[in-house]
Amino acid sequence: MKKKTIAIDMDNVIADTVAQYITWYERDHGVRIERTALHGIPELEAFPGGAIRKFLYTPGFFRTVPVMPGAQDAVQQLMEHFEVYIVSAALEFPQSLIEKYEWLGEHFPFISWRNIIFCGDKSIIGTDYMIDDHVKNLDTCKGKTFIYTAGHNIHIDRHTRVNDWKEVVALLMKELQNEKAD
Amino acid sequence: MKKKTIAIDMDNVIADTVAQYITWYERDHGVRIERTALHGIPELEAFPGGAIRKFLYTPGFFRTVPVMPGAQDAVQQLMEHFEVYIVSAALEFPQSLIEKYEWLGEHFPFISWRNIIFCGDKSIIGTDYMIDDHVKNLDTCKGKTFIYTAGHNIHIDRHTRVNDWKEVVALLMKELQNEKAD
Repeated sequence: MKKKTIAIDMDNVIADTVAQYITWYERDHGVRIERTALHGIPELEAFPGGAIRKFLYTPGFFRTVPVMPGAQDAVQQLMEHFEVYIVSAALEFPQSLIEKYEWLGEHFPFISWRNIIFCGDKSIIGTDYMIDDHVKNLDTCKGKTFIYTAGHNIHIDRHTRVNDWKEVVALLMKELQNEKAD
Repeated sequence: MKKKTIAIDMDNVIADTVAQYITWYERDHGVRIERTALHGIPELEAFPGGAIRKFLYTPGFFRTVPVMPGAQDAVQQLMEHFEVYIVSAALEFPQSLIEKYEWLGEHFPFISWRNIIFCGDKSIIGTDYMIDDHVKNLDTCKGKTFIYTAGHNIHIDRHTRVNDWKEVVALLMKELQNEKAD
């Protein structure tokens, strides 16, 4: 049977982009903003003075983001049963294109270039599943959607919530069981 | 009514990549290979000595490819009636990512970054129409497919053939009429 397809986002899903915001903001402004301060607030507004927008255009930002805990093992596990695509909205920040490609090569070397998609909006991505932190991406997805918890999305309840990679794997393995039972 | 979506390929569709192969090959080897010599042959084999593969990895190759005649006007015309996405298999040649982005900015400045997709394989692209020269991309498309004539694809008959941008526009405008009539 043909494997089902999953689109997995990068920022705040396999990359801990908020950790990088916090580290860089503290480095530049001497103030540590805690994750809880970001709850229910768009990221761009959570850090004062347009700091995030500046970071997003700074060479090296995307290349040095830490990996989201558990993401590497989880993605490898999922790849045994699903066709996994990394789908990242990289086109808004063109300098991120090569940085994201190199970052994937360093941290997810088991993902082929064939399975990487850098896009603008994600509305034409036709996978069976999508894991993303942004509701705008999930809302246009025709497949099953999982919202990966990030401060900015904690009030959203119209997509299945996942809080960490263990939950993602558990839910998708359950999908696989259901499919086999059908 | 929501506009229907079209995925348009870059190389050999809006970019005259074969023209660039011919120019660069003549520049480097002093031999002009005519387009007719490419009929029915995979591009990589049509130019001796692995020349094409070398070109594809050379900085500047993708940045300086000529525009396919008629593509600019045609894409603008189509954008009035369709949601147009440029979908290019850029991930095999990572240096092409930024070059292709800049090339689009120069020659197709009316296309938003939201409508650009750089991918590996195109099997998860879920548009209503796809225009491509490569049968491997068209074969996995669930929408209506148009094969843009290139030497390497002249023997393919399982997709609707288009020989130039005038034909593309004519066929898609007919699709629009049929849709309105339904």
